[in-house]
Amino acid sequence: MSDALLTDLYQLTMLEAYHRKGIDAPAVFELYARRLPPNRGYLVVAGLELVLEYLEALAFSAADLDWLASLGRFSDEFLHSLALFRFHGDVWAVPEGTVLFAGEPWLRVEARLSEAQFIESRLINLMHFSTLIATKAVRCVSAAAGRPLVDFGMRRAHGAEAALHAARATGLVGFAGTATVEAGRRYGLPLSGTMAHSYVQALGDEREAFRHYAMTFPGAATLLIDTDDTATAAERVAELVREGVDIRAVRIDSGDLSAEARRVRSILDAGGATSVQIVVSGNLDEFSIAELVQADAPIDVFGVGTRLDTSADAPTIDAVYKLQSVGGRASRKRSPGKETWPGAKQVWRRHGTDGRACGDVVTLAHEHLADADPLLECVMQGGRRVRSAPTFASMADRVHAEWRALPDSARALRDPVAVPVTYSEAIVSLARELDAAST
Amino acid sequence: MSDALLTDLYQLTMLEAYHRKGIDAPAVFELYARRLPPNRGYLVVAGLELVLEYLEALAFSAADLDWLASLGRFSDEFLHSLALFRFHGDVWAVPEGTVLFAGEPWLRVEARLSEAQFIESRLINLMHFSTLIATKAVRCVSAAAGRPLVDFGMRRAHGAEAALHAARATGLVGFAGTATVEAGRRYGLPLSGTMAHSYVQALGDEREAFRHYAMTFPGAATLLIDTDDTATAAERVAELVREGVDIRAVRIDSGDLSAEARRVRSILDAGGATSVQIVVSGNLDEFSIAELVQADAPIDVFGVGTRLDTSADAPTIDAVYKLQSVGGRASRKRSPGKETWPGAKQVWRRHGTDGRACGDVVTLAHEHLADADPLLECVMQGGRRVRSAPTFASMADRVHAEWRALPDSARALRDPVAVPVTYSEAIVSLARELDAAST
Repeated sequence: MSDALLTDLYQLTMLEAYHRKGIDAPAVFELYARRLPPNRGYLVVAGLELVLEYLEALAFSAADLDWLASLGRFSDEFLHSLALFRFHGDVWAVPEGTVLFAGEPWLRVEARLSEAQFIESRLINLMHFSTLIATKAVRCVSAAAGRPLVDFGMRRAHGAEAALHAARATGLVGFAGTATVEAGRRYGLPLSGTMAHSYVQALGDEREAFRHYAMTFPGAATLLIDTDDTATAAERVAELVREGVDIRAVRIDSGDLSAEARRVRSILDAGGATSVQIVVSGNLDEFSIAELVQADAPIDVFGVGTRLDTSADAPTIDAVYKLQSVGGRASRKRSPGKETWPGAKQVWRRHGTDGRACGDVVTLAHEHLADADPLLECVMQGGRRVRSAPTFASMADRVHAEWRALPDSARALRDPVAVPVTYSEAIVSLARELDAAST
Repeated sequence: MSDALLTDLYQLTMLEAYHRKGIDAPAVFELYARRLPPNRGYLVVAGLELVLEYLEALAFSAADLDWLASLGRFSDEFLHSLALFRFHGDVWAVPEGTVLFAGEPWLRVEARLSEAQFIESRLINLMHFSTLIATKAVRCVSAAAGRPLVDFGMRRAHGAEAALHAARATGLVGFAGTATVEAGRRYGLPLSGTMAHSYVQALGDEREAFRHYAMTFPGAATLLIDTDDTATAAERVAELVREGVDIRAVRIDSGDLSAEARRVRSILDAGGATSVQIVVSGNLDEFSIAELVQADAPIDVFGVGTRLDTSADAPTIDAVYKLQSVGGRASRKRSPGKETWPGAKQVWRRHGTDGRACGDVVTLAHEHLADADPLLECVMQGGRRVRSAPTFASMADRVHAEWRALPDSARALRDPVAVPVTYSEAIVSLARELDAAST
């Protein structure tokens, strides 16, 4: 795949138009969410490292340019200029795992107009999805109240990259592992897996299927016990444990998970298999996890898949990437319901005496607030990263610190209330000036 | 990316368990939807060519095997066997663009157990997403009642592959084009694009921005007219047309699209720009398109993005891949709510005297129904495709023929009623026999 051609056609046609007119002034674009999705009181911003990798590597190959030429849409002179096209700009961004609300920039790009414009489609594509899943995943972590979670979502994620980036997003919020093997290789995430019903069916004899799997992976096998009758299967597991077979866990994937977990726990315990853990799966999300935790179901691990990797209850964020200034002149658009605030910006967070976030202020980039912390930092200069990538552990620490500093009302799984975001007087005045000048 | 490692960990651990036990009997698996998503009266099955490409190319590289060895989970003997692992099986499937209902196989794999099992995760990952989007896209096409549609969804699709496969799915149901450049290159789809608000802002002067773009792309420019005031912008467009500038279309991306289109159409017509088309965009889906068509809004083209490429109202299908028989012995699982029908199957469609589908029958593969058409055909033998890939035009023809043959009740955008699916007596008897034998 060509990363350079992974864009919308209009990015190329706009670049040709800029090129012909000789326009390439310094520009500032910002990526942010116009509003929060339903039932979201915050976003966990993620995907920054993926964006920085993309920007560092961005270039048109000879094959890309030949193919573009074959379309007959672009001038030769413009296509020649693309051979030298690279991203040379600066990027300011919040670190991955930062909590933000609507109307606050995730990232600010300062570059020549052509470079800052061209990257729009892939920037949104990358950060939108990682942020969507990191946000959903944190909600699952919070619902699980300390119990570990594992990502099982590859099969119904929207394609290969979605599966990999979803696994990455779950890693950075502190999931215990993922089942997606390539995500383990690419990102160094711990791998986790169980078995499928087809394995039990293929062996025909459930007891022998369990025994053989446990002997093949001593101490590491999670046995799926609902292919036929769960209680019978749990008794078989306990029997094997009594025979000295080392079995880590059982998985229940159907039925009333709370009732089944209770029944299985009591069979295992009565049978002397007290150390065998219970994993549950099957269309889980933060809502069903919270119910299971509320019911005090004896569950040790949650396997979360489809509804997590697609953020099924809210599969999109209204994330946009908008021009804030060009040639040193602030700019805004005034399309109904889609107005933008002009100028390069910074986000400042204030905490109350209880340590909880009590209100963010968005200012122009050059403003300074004495009693608050700035959230955007410089992560790329002249097209090169200025610091090494954070580890998953450090990102997870950040996520948890940020989450703990949220008011309870923002953390609520249903009908949350986001922390208030206000705009500085300087931004509001600038918008008024621009409106007055244009009418 | 390694295609072979794009799988769930349990596929590999199950393979090691089969390998150690020397089990590799012929097996039959089928991929199907357990139920239809909300507001779906049918599925347009898609993604088959992507699956066949995957199966033909599937192999572990030396680097894959080295990395797997580094995990310390697998035996050397098993990893050595993986070096020779290929897919040698047969595949029966419905052609891309076929309409199916719940409980009907999209595809049947007949292969050695290890091969048929291993491919599960990626098979579902590929076909689930393409089918999800093809189904959503056909609903948009039907709502548009003959007006062309264009895919604008890349930025909020779930990653790169989702954007590309979504564009492909829209191509196979007859969309007029996509904005995603790489999808144009990879699949030969027509490209379509407009301009962004930032272009108008960057040029500062809207009239000059329009003139320059139209001169750069004579006869091919679609001008975005809602950056500031839509009526003023429409007057500028008409003025340019009167000056002899060749402008193809305008795009409206905000506000009340029906009212705005009417207002813009009357300004353009009054100004002599009767041939300039109107494109609308902005969180469109089949529901809002149907409303605009119902209101008889003067819209020529619909640009559909986020809600299409994520199938936002129903972002998942309960698609599964289940063992149907192994070693010549039919098999089923009986997990509550997730029971399977045993045996290798065929789907037969019956049409009424009005030409509409009136009921499908699922039979065992060897059964024959005299008055119905079989839908699954052999597309791969011994791991090789047995026919060339269909063209987008032929797939779109199939989709439209299939859609036209649906009863109105199944086509409804809200609360549709699927065509009834029944199971042959032979399948029902087989399930009873298996249940009796296992109790």
